[in-house]
Amino acid sequence: MSRKIRMGMVGGGQGSAIGKVHRMAAALDGQIELVCGAFSSDPRRSKASGAELYLPADRVYDSYAEMLERERRRPEGDRMDFVVIVTPNHLHYAPAAAALKAGFHVMCDKPMTFSLAEARKLKTLVDRTGLLFGLTHNYTGYPMVKEARELARGGKLGAIRKIVVEYPQGWLHELIEATGQKQAAWRTDPARSGAAGCMGDIGTHAESLAEYITGLRIDSLCAELTTFVKGRKLDDDGNVLIRYQGGARGILHASQIAIDEENGLNIRIWGEKGGLQWRQEEPNTLILKRPDGPRQLIRSGQGYLSRRARRACRLPAGHPEGFIEAFANLYCNYAEALGARLAGRKPDPLALDFPTVDDGVRGMAFIEAVVKSARAGAKWVKMAE
Amino acid sequence: MSRKIRMGMVGGGQGSAIGKVHRMAAALDGQIELVCGAFSSDPRRSKASGAELYLPADRVYDSYAEMLERERRRPEGDRMDFVVIVTPNHLHYAPAAAALKAGFHVMCDKPMTFSLAEARKLKTLVDRTGLLFGLTHNYTGYPMVKEARELARGGKLGAIRKIVVEYPQGWLHELIEATGQKQAAWRTDPARSGAAGCMGDIGTHAESLAEYITGLRIDSLCAELTTFVKGRKLDDDGNVLIRYQGGARGILHASQIAIDEENGLNIRIWGEKGGLQWRQEEPNTLILKRPDGPRQLIRSGQGYLSRRARRACRLPAGHPEGFIEAFANLYCNYAEALGARLAGRKPDPLALDFPTVDDGVRGMAFIEAVVKSARAGAKWVKMAE
Amino acid sequence: MSRKIRMGMVGGGQGSAIGKVHRMAAALDGQIELVCGAFSSDPRRSKASGAELYLPADRVYDSYAEMLERERRRPEGDRMDFVVIVTPNHLHYAPAAAALKAGFHVMCDKPMTFSLAEARKLKTLVDRTGLLFGLTHNYTGYPMVKEARELARGGKLGAIRKIVVEYPQGWLHELIEATGQKQAAWRTDPARSGAAGCMGDIGTHAESLAEYITGLRIDSLCAELTTFVKGRKLDDDGNVLIRYQGGARGILHASQIAIDEENGLNIRIWGEKGGLQWRQEEPNTLILKRPDGPRQLIRSGQGYLSRRARRACRLPAGHPEGFIEAFANLYCNYAEALGARLAGRKPDPLALDFPTVDDGVRGMAFIEAVVKSARAGAKWVKMAE
Amino acid sequence: MSRKIRMGMVGGGQGSAIGKVHRMAAALDGQIELVCGAFSSDPRRSKASGAELYLPADRVYDSYAEMLERERRRPEGDRMDFVVIVTPNHLHYAPAAAALKAGFHVMCDKPMTFSLAEARKLKTLVDRTGLLFGLTHNYTGYPMVKEARELARGGKLGAIRKIVVEYPQGWLHELIEATGQKQAAWRTDPARSGAAGCMGDIGTHAESLAEYITGLRIDSLCAELTTFVKGRKLDDDGNVLIRYQGGARGILHASQIAIDEENGLNIRIWGEKGGLQWRQEEPNTLILKRPDGPRQLIRSGQGYLSRRARRACRLPAGHPEGFIEAFANLYCNYAEALGARLAGRKPDPLALDFPTVDDGVRGMAFIEAVVKSARAGAKWVKMAE
Repeated sequence: MSRKIRMGMVGGGQGSAIGKVHRMAAALDGQIELVCGAFSSDPRRSKASGAELYLPADRVYDSYAEMLERERRRPEGDRMDFVVIVTPNHLHYAPAAAALKAGFHVMCDKPMTFSLAEARKLKTLVDRTGLLFGLTHNYTGYPMVKEARELARGGKLGAIRKIVVEYPQGWLHELIEATGQKQAAWRTDPARSGAAGCMGDIGTHAESLAEYITGLRIDSLCAELTTFVKGRKLDDDGNVLIRYQGGARGILHASQIAIDEENGLNIRIWGEKGGLQWRQEEPNTLILKRPDGPRQLIRSGQGYLSRRARRACRLPAGHPEGFIEAFANLYCNYAEALGARLAGRKPDPLALDFPTVDDGVRGMAFIEAVVKSARAGAKWVKMAE
Repeated sequence: MSRKIRMGMVGGGQGSAIGKVHRMAAALDGQIELVCGAFSSDPRRSKASGAELYLPADRVYDSYAEMLERERRRPEGDRMDFVVIVTPNHLHYAPAAAALKAGFHVMCDKPMTFSLAEARKLKTLVDRTGLLFGLTHNYTGYPMVKEARELARGGKLGAIRKIVVEYPQGWLHELIEATGQKQAAWRTDPARSGAAGCMGDIGTHAESLAEYITGLRIDSLCAELTTFVKGRKLDDDGNVLIRYQGGARGILHASQIAIDEENGLNIRIWGEKGGLQWRQEEPNTLILKRPDGPRQLIRSGQGYLSRRARRACRLPAGHPEGFIEAFANLYCNYAEALGARLAGRKPDPLALDFPTVDDGVRGMAFIEAVVKSARAGAKWVKMAE
Repeated sequence: MSRKIRMGMVGGGQGSAIGKVHRMAAALDGQIELVCGAFSSDPRRSKASGAELYLPADRVYDSYAEMLERERRRPEGDRMDFVVIVTPNHLHYAPAAAALKAGFHVMCDKPMTFSLAEARKLKTLVDRTGLLFGLTHNYTGYPMVKEARELARGGKLGAIRKIVVEYPQGWLHELIEATGQKQAAWRTDPARSGAAGCMGDIGTHAESLAEYITGLRIDSLCAELTTFVKGRKLDDDGNVLIRYQGGARGILHASQIAIDEENGLNIRIWGEKGGLQWRQEEPNTLILKRPDGPRQLIRSGQGYLSRRARRACRLPAGHPEGFIEAFANLYCNYAEALGARLAGRKPDPLALDFPTVDDGVRGMAFIEAVVKSARAGAKWVKMAE
Repeated sequence: MSRKIRMGMVGGGQGSAIGKVHRMAAALDGQIELVCGAFSSDPRRSKASGAELYLPADRVYDSYAEMLERERRRPEGDRMDFVVIVTPNHLHYAPAAAALKAGFHVMCDKPMTFSLAEARKLKTLVDRTGLLFGLTHNYTGYPMVKEARELARGGKLGAIRKIVVEYPQGWLHELIEATGQKQAAWRTDPARSGAAGCMGDIGTHAESLAEYITGLRIDSLCAELTTFVKGRKLDDDGNVLIRYQGGARGILHASQIAIDEENGLNIRIWGEKGGLQWRQEEPNTLILKRPDGPRQLIRSGQGYLSRRARRACRLPAGHPEGFIEAFANLYCNYAEALGARLAGRKPDPLALDFPTVDDGVRGMAFIEAVVKSARAGAKWVKMAE
């Protein structure tokens, strides 16, 4: 490509936290340019947001429908290449489907849709259009997560026996949705968030992380969801026992009432020959456990890493790369894959290393199974394929 | 007391790891003296063990029965005061019961008995004789565990919501019992260890730790036990969902196949107002989590600790105290309580801070419930009171 | 400003590590746009670099002189606003001076110049032109460093007594400059790097960090520089005793032969009332030490931070921000200050929180003093004001 | 030996912290028995102390002179084997010399004497009598320090280039000696502590640790000592540059005004091929740094350790061993060496691994050199051989 990839944004206007994250992630490597947006369902807010982003007024739209329509009419060398969707969960499916139908590639925030049914419809649409669909399960973008995948899938641990994945947060330990906190308001509202609260918001990240690293699929699970904060409408804590296909056993738990936990996603895996441990809050270290020698601290940026991990590092070891860089790695790969497609060349196979609509479907199946198990009193249920 | 408390030992002879630990713990503070022992069911081994310990030959016995009988006949100012039992699990009940019947106080290794039924019989006996019975759930002896108890029970965390207690080890990740490793052999043998393997050996420590700190009792649980190593007769891994009385939720998991985990007992607790975290492998730090200020590192040996914790510290802060010191704290308290009784005075109330026969009964009820749940396919079962 | 700030780059072409870092840092927040560059002294390389960056060919120049001349002739609403200089040390002064003389604001990599004499000349020029000059002592951009500054200068520690600042690296533990490694080649070459090697490259970061946080100025120092690797022309390790004005004492040491140290800049400070500790490799935690209560872990992104620190955070706590984000904070502030000036308004006073030509002069005075002391056999020398 | 080694104690009575530590360390392994003592220069206090320790009244003496005299007259099979001296520094030499002259072996607390001159006299006496003399530089007793020694002296790091050893404490950050705190009172009193305060009390531990691990001897040093707390008579902080024989460079710093530092002895060593790091406060981990692979966490109790380290471990990995255990390792070796001598057999060569009078002489030479350098304004001085 002799030009940057052009991005249009749906949602993410003033006051949005995640919109800003996507813009920073997309901008970081100089390969993607924000060219237009429908930043809010409130047209005035959309305009004001676009102005703050230095976009020309004529590319700041009142609705995603208008954006799709008018961008489609621009000359090919000028219109946006893909749409990124950063609205609350209940507003993912409609713009994503519309964008695909309008011929635009799509990047979508997670969880992918409001329900498993929607997710399956979206997959059908992606398959039919053949367009490039990315899903921002951003924690899979960390270099050390990629190294963990190489080690786990490459046999370094032997057959996996046990997976413990956790995602504690504390920010919802009180009923802050009652105080008008915007992030809390929609995430705890079943009409906007979906059937699960904590488990949909962050439990899905935990599930996706475990699968990304190990390749194992969940066979069945037994979930207990709890709403600890009085007056809350969705779960704010969940504990899940998991049986993976092939015999591995797992625990997944997530919480948003774990006071003073910030964003504590972490995973531990043990197999027949070794183990791995990684924590999102200290993301540049991966701990390798071996049966017959000292524990090793594998570090981001080092020359000994696998190619998959190395290409996800921008800096030498000891120069911490964080959340935005990991998020940007999804955009990097997506842009490389999309750029290759636009230019009619083959992408680096490792550029296809970003979550897709299939991951989104499984994420929704996970939520559905968890809710079903919990409602039955924490009984074992099969997870849909 | 103007003399040391006198201890006799059952088990713990040559080759025993735990016998040595008990002797070091008992010796550390200069309050207890080992005066006699029946160190092995093999009389020659018992003799040799006693000689290594510089005991006079006439106080090294061929069996615990002989020891009880002959010590009982010694003059009061000379005979042992209490018996410590450090045999494998299936050999706890008989000597403990015999000692109580012979009028000796008892200290016993954990899990207390081979079965819940035995445990209940032992409790009846302790209650009837009124003798002092201690149980070495040694991890409750750490100063920072005691500080955690003061904070949790003193209301610092508000009502407890969630408890995650873990005990990963890796030493049984292969079938080492087949190689003649003595420790592994009896612990994986249902005839000597009991109905559970990993859960009995270390899961009970995890259960006891959570209860010691929070005071919460288990209402019901859902347990999945797995035997990962082919040819093994008992579980080597277990994952348990817990419902505590009063509404708190918990996860307890233990493993002996978690490669390169050494002795990773740890606990995290969150309540309505704060949280706590403690790891046995770095035992001198307790992490306090608060909703509105920086996380605090509470440290062993500091002047700001509660009296319960301070009296469990022997050294100023920064002088690490470890496993043996924590173990010794149980002996300290037991010796102080026993000394007070022998001298006819009131003990320091904090000296009664050591696990008793009641803890032993609950530990056995936990094992029984876990095994019952697991055998039913990981269904919820009530834990016996 | 209703537009982005426009940046032109000197140096930083293909193969440059630091040029890429500056571009990412400048792009991250969407306030600065790279509009032109003279990326290499080799015109073909400059062209190729510009093309990779999607710049129009007519704004990729053969030399910085040409860039200054031709940008100056562009209409005001179109030409670059400031120049960033990312060449090796010996090529800082000339383009910086030329840019200032041509009326452009300047951002410059560190150490500021090749010699103290050059630094002083540059300061005179900055003072005379009144243009905005920024220096990328990037480690001062971390939120937790800013919080440390607020605490230290705000009196939380009382009068400072002792400062220990360290900067160990290991990448030059062998003579890699002999293998053609480009970064090593110029940094170990006195003709390009200056009078000091390790001390100029990273020792100055350590010095600047200590001063940024505490406000203390060095009175005198005693430095031992060593070249451990045979065949190397400059120091690769240095140990310095420091006497600060006002009586504080310090140790500063830096090394590039400390095997497996990545980028280990860290600082510990103790005063009459408390202490602080920070490590660049785990930059989102600041440790506060108090005489009478538990150590506190102050965390990036938390609501309890000072305004200076909070405005340097882009994300909620637990979402790690790293090296690039800290670097970008210098650009953020520089852009805000420059934008305000261009728009004729007052900037947020905290936007002036970036290193300036004065810091650059002191950095060069530090290098000069260190080299003078070391050459005298590690004797005490006064540092020039 | 078919009996325990018999120990008599000089000093260490009621209120003494270090006396208790020595008794716990000596008791831990069941090889040493406290049989008598002159616990205080105040006979009543000595008596009371002895009674608390359950010693028979006739073996609690009014003075060390009386103890030596009366123990000497006891039959060989009954009298004490060695004397341990745990008085303040100015009272080490006289009882040590008297004990040696009376034919008793000696264990002595550190620093060995009040002055270098005394140290040399003591060495002459030890050499002349041929008796066994141990010095409790207790930090050399940690298993991971022993492993570090094996690695460093065994060539794993190549030729040593740089050593940084630190010993920060904070307990003297105020003038607590003015409040009657007994430990502070004598340690800050030149008449009892010696020529140096902080450097004598803990700087010598740092010096001894570096030498124990690397085998390197100090050639010369440049020391700055500071008394930060007004009214104090001795240094409470010191920073030292070191040149080792053979070309290695070092930094040693110690402080007792570093608020909230507990007992922060730590060391980092880098050589041509690798590096090591160890912290006393987390003593069961040794970090190994390599040029071409991940950092390794070497752990106490593991099977892969050297024999020297393994025999200093009492427990499996993950069962923390701390300060008392390390201290006890000196007693273990001393007891094994002494027992072998008494029994006329060869000791395990590794049992000779405890500090001796030679280490004590070098420690005093270090103090003398540091004070001389500091008094000259922090100039380089040669350290006496």
